[in-house]
Parts: sequence; structure tokens; C-alpha cells
Amino acid sequence: MHRDPQVQLLLTGNEIMSGDTVDSNSALIAQRLADIGLGIYRKVTVGDDRALLCRELTAMASSADVLIVNGGLGPTVDDLTAVVLAEAAGVPLEEHPQAVAHLEAWCGRRNIPLDAANRKQAQLPAGSRIVDNAIGSAVGFELYLGKCRVICTPGVPGELRRMLDLIVDDLAAALTRPAQRHILRLQTFGLGESSAQQLINDAIPDWPAAVELGFRAGAPQMEIKLAVADAADLPLRERCEQRLRELVGDHIIGEGDTQLAAKVLELLSARGQTLTTAESCTGGLIASQLTRIPGSSQAFHAGFVTYANDIKSSVLGVSDATLASHGAVSEAVVREMALGALERARADYAIAVSGVAGPEGGTPDKPVGTVWLAWGTAEDLRTRCLLWPVERTLFQTMIAAAGLDMIRRQLLGLHSEPRYFAQRRAR
Amino acid sequence: MHRDPQVQLLLTGNEIMSGDTVDSNSALIAQRLADIGLGIYRKVTVGDDRALLCRELTAMASSADVLIVNGGLGPTVDDLTAVVLAEAAGVPLEEHPQAVAHLEAWCGRRNIPLDAANRKQAQLPAGSRIVDNAIGSAVGFELYLGKCRVICTPGVPGELRRMLDLIVDDLAAALTRPAQRHILRLQTFGLGESSAQQLINDAIPDWPAAVELGFRAGAPQMEIKLAVADAADLPLRERCEQRLRELVGDHIIGEGDTQLAAKVLELLSARGQTLTTAESCTGGLIASQLTRIPGSSQAFHAGFVTYANDIKSSVLGVSDATLASHGAVSEAVVREMALGALERARADYAIAVSGVAGPEGGTPDKPVGTVWLAWGTAEDLRTRCLLWPVERTLFQTMIAAAGLDMIRRQLLGLHSEPRYFAQRRAR
Repeated sequence: MHRDPQVQLLLTGNEIMSGDTVDSNSALIAQRLADIGLGIYRKVTVGDDRALLCRELTAMASSADVLIVNGGLGPTVDDLTAVVLAEAAGVPLEEHPQAVAHLEAWCGRRNIPLDAANRKQAQLPAGSRIVDNAIGSAVGFELYLGKCRVICTPGVPGELRRMLDLIVDDLAAALTRPAQRHILRLQTFGLGESSAQQLINDAIPDWPAAVELGFRAGAPQMEIKLAVADAADLPLRERCEQRLRELVGDHIIGEGDTQLAAKVLELLSARGQTLTTAESCTGGLIASQLTRIPGSSQAFHAGFVTYANDIKSSVLGVSDATLASHGAVSEAVVREMALGALERARADYAIAVSGVAGPEGGTPDKPVGTVWLAWGTAEDLRTRCLLWPVERTLFQTMIAAAGLDMIRRQLLGLHSEPRYFAQRRAR
Repeated sequence: MHRDPQVQLLLTGNEIMSGDTVDSNSALIAQRLADIGLGIYRKVTVGDDRALLCRELTAMASSADVLIVNGGLGPTVDDLTAVVLAEAAGVPLEEHPQAVAHLEAWCGRRNIPLDAANRKQAQLPAGSRIVDNAIGSAVGFELYLGKCRVICTPGVPGELRRMLDLIVDDLAAALTRPAQRHILRLQTFGLGESSAQQLINDAIPDWPAAVELGFRAGAPQMEIKLAVADAADLPLRERCEQRLRELVGDHIIGEGDTQLAAKVLELLSARGQTLTTAESCTGGLIASQLTRIPGSSQAFHAGFVTYANDIKSSVLGVSDATLASHGAVSEAVVREMALGALERARADYAIAVSGVAGPEGGTPDKPVGTVWLAWGTAEDLRTRCLLWPVERTLFQTMIAAAGLDMIRRQLLGLHSEPRYFAQRRAR
């Protein structure tokens, strides 16, 4: 067989079907299989229903090369995997000596007797091969159903994680080639999925089919993924990356999972410099995002949340005259907020934000979504007004990111304007 | 049809199959359907593969009464739901005027042009009925495939959540019986799932079977759900609620989705009073959570993020002597932080926090997870040291909540100590 084995995944558990538990096991299995270049073709989830489970298992095994079953190995009556696999295979359940030995050792370490409920976990389909469970009482097991290798795994995430080490090694050894997808993930800010797609379509019409292009929109960041199946195509992927960077490189924050706040802290720490924040409409979100990052205290010492006008004056020294003549959402005010914060925090860089987050507070002149940003140093302080009329918390998220992004751009000496300046221009 | 409609769920997206994204949407859908007494019979997940999607959709629609499709509504080439549903139904894609109007309004609010990529989202299977998307650009849509009602929903969780309001109402209206479960949801802080279960087991051993009891653990809050199938059992549910409130009532923040920050703001606004924050280890998270709430400016005017020691002195007036003799994580320091913030913000209440969020910075005396909290008014300022040794961001989340919770308790005049004071007692 020269193609990759086709892998399917069958999950069982009433708690996943009811929504009481979010299924993170299938993501874990998918990630581990991706490490050896295997994808999951199809995934089915059902509750603890014996007839339905048996039907699904039989149908999936008839089309897949490998079927991983997750869940239903435990000692209770709604743990049905062994009985269902035996039924589908037309073999009896038998007490498996290796599974009994595992249970005895497991109970022995805990100084508890092996009771009937636990002993049920040694009743496996005749002919099963055991997969060791390094942590829990229930062993995994596998059996061929026709040409399909069915591997039954525990639903407890910690146990599954350890068992996947064995399973992945085993599957990798059976692969006829060193199959690994080569994935590059780039984090961006300020690009939408559709605009990025459009830009690439227009600028790189000859994008090669061998380089899979994917987008994952998040708020505030969007991930662009470039993947090739064959290492021989890596130079091709590199050329694509190069062209992408020529096109929107200033919007790329970094590779992998790089977050804006972490990137800004990294740049500041490398220079031994510090950043302070003076936040009105973002209400502490920028400070909070910075301080989530371990070690942030190196480059972030102080932040000010000046929500009310009199606080902008008393805490940051914004002049009452400026507030009275320009209003709180104005270039003059964010400028004075930034300068006041820089002085009080004795910081090198500042971000100051004042805007109308909504839903109330908009005026014809300054509708909901209007925001003034100031960023930079005391000597090189820049400002911009944007109109970003989205729901309140999304507005706060995007504006906090925009502030961090402008500092990133300044620290990197990027001179091009971000695309969102044009798209979010205030009228 | 006197039985419940059989609901199936088809999820699409390479990012779910690859494990890059953990699917939380299907749990959300399941929870919302459970509210109207509907379960999900079967769930299939596949990547963005046109042929496979079409095969699954056709097969599922042939056995289900309702098929909810999630994902694949976006503007990019890997968003295939509309084209696949059209293919399965044997109808053409047509530009839907209502969807175009929605896109125009959506772009108009953002002051961006409606480009070709976005306009693709108005190409829907002929005969589709639109389901409004209150937030995003992609409308939902539904179409009958034979006798199966196929409802296509967006993969973005926030958009899905809002759309489910419409879908659930619609499905509930179509039920042939008044199949509404009567659900009371109570938000709590400071109780764990298993300890709450144990408490109830011990204190209310005669809990009636007709009142279903459920827990959904989140961070920082946990939801307790009381549900009865029959309106005749509502008095029974009320008695259960009463006994629950006698048992842990001081830990109950409110009904429905009530969040701690919103509750505190509501209590403050009702009295015309204000709160300020002086945050070290929570780094602005408390301020940020308060200012997420619309109208928070009424009761929250100023917050201080004093991450570095010299800033605690220069900005909040904490004395250098106190810092030198007690250290930043100390009762004396959070007390001076709170008093300094109260004075500078001219606020009625303050929360001050200083702790070791980790992963670095712990000492034998003050290990990672140690935190001093001060809360209250200048006249009635209280303090407490807790040890909450969890991962950094979870620590910040829980401590921010604890601070808000103590203000809530003070505003409500609750005198009992929260259970987490005993559980998280510092050595």
C-alpha cells in the first residue's frame, strides 16, 4: 500500500453528546497523528447506545484502514466499547490474562481489592492485542475487523495522551514512507480572511497547488497556514512565503502561536525598554494582555485606566481646557494621556486610547466605534483616529491589538501604513 | 409525529480535523438544544472536502429530521457548505437578495466596500430561507432535503451563539408537545463541581428525582442547573432552589448568565457608588472585566496597574519603608495600595491585589500562587492572604474574581466566609 492509511475516529460518550463535556480528545489524537503525517478523514461521535455504536463501528471499519475508538473503556454499565467490538467482530468476550495482570498491579499499587466492576475491564473481544495504559485501570486493545485495524482507547485525557505515544510509534513504524506534512503557520493582525484571500488571488495568481493555503480567523489575530505534503516541495513553500511577506509582511507578527503582546514584550525586553498604557475605552485590556505573559514585568511596570474625564486630569494630567474644548475622544486628549503616562511611569513607550465603545455614548460627530489612538515615545508620539464599529467587547479586543500593533511597527521601524488604517478610516 | 425530531450534527472544517482547533461549537449546540428537551443523536465531523461533505450531508439528511451543519459559511475557497447543500439538493446557487442586503449593511457599518470574496457569502442554494447573523457577515440558511430540515450555521462561536437563539426558538415552536424543560441556571463562584455535588448529597439526601441537577464548571464561575420536565414540578424545583440557597446561597451570584463584574457594577450603580482597582499580579484584568460591561463608566472611573515596586510608591503612594520591610506581596502593601487608589480615584470601594502569579518569582516563604487581597472602603478595609497555586492565567482569572466577589459580599452585607477562604488558605 503506497497511499497513507485512511484513519477514522469514533468517539463515544453521553457527556460529549449532551455538551456537558467539550471533546478535546479528538484534537489531541489529530495533533499526534499529524506529527507522523497522518490526517483524520472522518470523525463520528455518538452517545452510549449499543445498537448505534455497533452500526457505526461496523460501517466505519468497512471503509477505513485504521479506526480509533475513544471512550467507553471504563467499569460502568455505559462503557460499551469492548462488548460492541466483540459483537461487530463476531467473537466472544474473554477475560484477557494480560489485562487481569494489569488490573491486579494497578489495584495493588493503590492497596485496594480488585472488585467485580473493575474486573469487567479485562473482558475483551477474543483475539485482542493489549495496548498498555500507563496511568489508568482500563487497558487499550486492538483487533482487526476485516482489513481495518480497530484501536480502542480510554476517554480520560491523561490516559489517552500516554497511550498515544505507543499508538503513534506503532502506526509510524507501519507507514511505508516517512510521511510528514510540513506546515508553516504565520500569525497576522489587520487582515481579514476574505481580504487576504483576495489579495493573494490578485497578486499571486500562479500560487502552486502543492502549497496548501489555509486561513483561520480569530479575534484579533488571523493565522495563515502554508503546508506541503512532500519535503521536496519545501523550496516551493519558501518561495510562497517570500511572496506573501512581500505582499503583507508588515502584517505578520510571527510564526507559530506568536501573540501581539508577547511580540511587543520580546522587542522591548531585547532593547531594555519599557511600555506604559493609558486606557479609556479599552479599560485595562492592553495592560491585562501584556501581564498575562510570564516575565512581562521586565518591560511593563505601570498602566493607567482613566475611564472618567476628571481622572484623565487628576491621574494623568490631561488639562481641563483640552478636555473642554476637544472632548475626551480627541487627538489632543490621547496625546496628553500618553505624555502623562510616559512621565508617571518613567517608560520609554506609551499607548493611549480614548474612544466610544458603545452601545451608548455615540454622537453624529463621534459615532460608536470612533477611537483616537496615540503611541510612541515622548519625542516621536503618533496619533490616529479610527472607526471600528463592532460589538463592544470585540471593539475593545481589536483596538487593544491595534495599539500593540502600532508599537510593534514602531519598534521594528516599519514605515508602511497598516491596511486597517485605510479600511477603518474615521469619516 | 409525536416523537421528538431526531437531530444530527455535521461539522466541517480542516482546523477541527487537524486538531488545531478544539470544537466547542457542538457542545454549545447540544446545550442549547437540551434547553428545549432535544438531544443530538449523532455527530459527524469532516474536513473541507467537497465530495466527502456532499456524501455525508446526503446520508445524514436521509435519516435525520433536523440536520444542523456548522462551519464552512465564510468567504474563502475552503468554505463549501452552500455549494455542497445546493449539490445535494440538486438546485443551483443563487445570489440571495436578503443575504446581499445583509452584507451591504454589514460592510456599510464598517465603512468597507463589499468585495467579490465577501459577496460569495450571498450565493446560497435556490429556495433557502435566511437565518439572521446578528454579528458576522455570513448569514445562516436552511433548506429541506427531502423531509430533513437542514440548517447551516457559522463556525465563529460568537456568531453561532446568537444565531442559536433564533434556531432554538424556531425548533421549540415546531415541537408538537410543550417539550420545554423548565430550567433554572444559577451562577456561582467559589464552589467546585465535585464539592458542590458532595455538599448537596450530604445535606439534601432526599433530593427529588424529578428535579434534574447539573453542574457546568467554568473559570472562574460554575453554573448549577435545576431542571424539571413538567410544569407541575415547578414548586418542587422551587423548594430545591430554596434548600440550595440555604446551603450555599452566599456563593450564588445570580441567575442566568450573571457575571461577577456585572453584578458588582449593578450593586454599585444602584447605590450611586464607585469602585477603583489597584492591581499588581492581575495586571489590569479586574479593570478590564469591569469595563467590558456596557454602562460600567457609571460605577468605575479609574484603575491602576502598578506592576513594579517604584510605581506602587510613585503612583499610589505606597511607602518605600513598607515595601522594604514587608515586601510587595504583603498585607501592609495591599492596604496602602487600596487606600492610595481610593484617594486618587475619589472612589467609595477599592480592590487591591498583589501576588506571585508565576511561573517565576516564588520563594519558600511566598510560593507561586500566594496573593494578598485588600477590599472595601477607607473606613472598612479588609484583607486576606490566599494560596491559589495554578497556572498563571488561571491564577489571574480566579484572583480577579475573588476580588470582585469580596466586594459583592461586602455590598450585600454577607457575613459568612466564602468556602475558598478555607480551601485556599495560605500556610
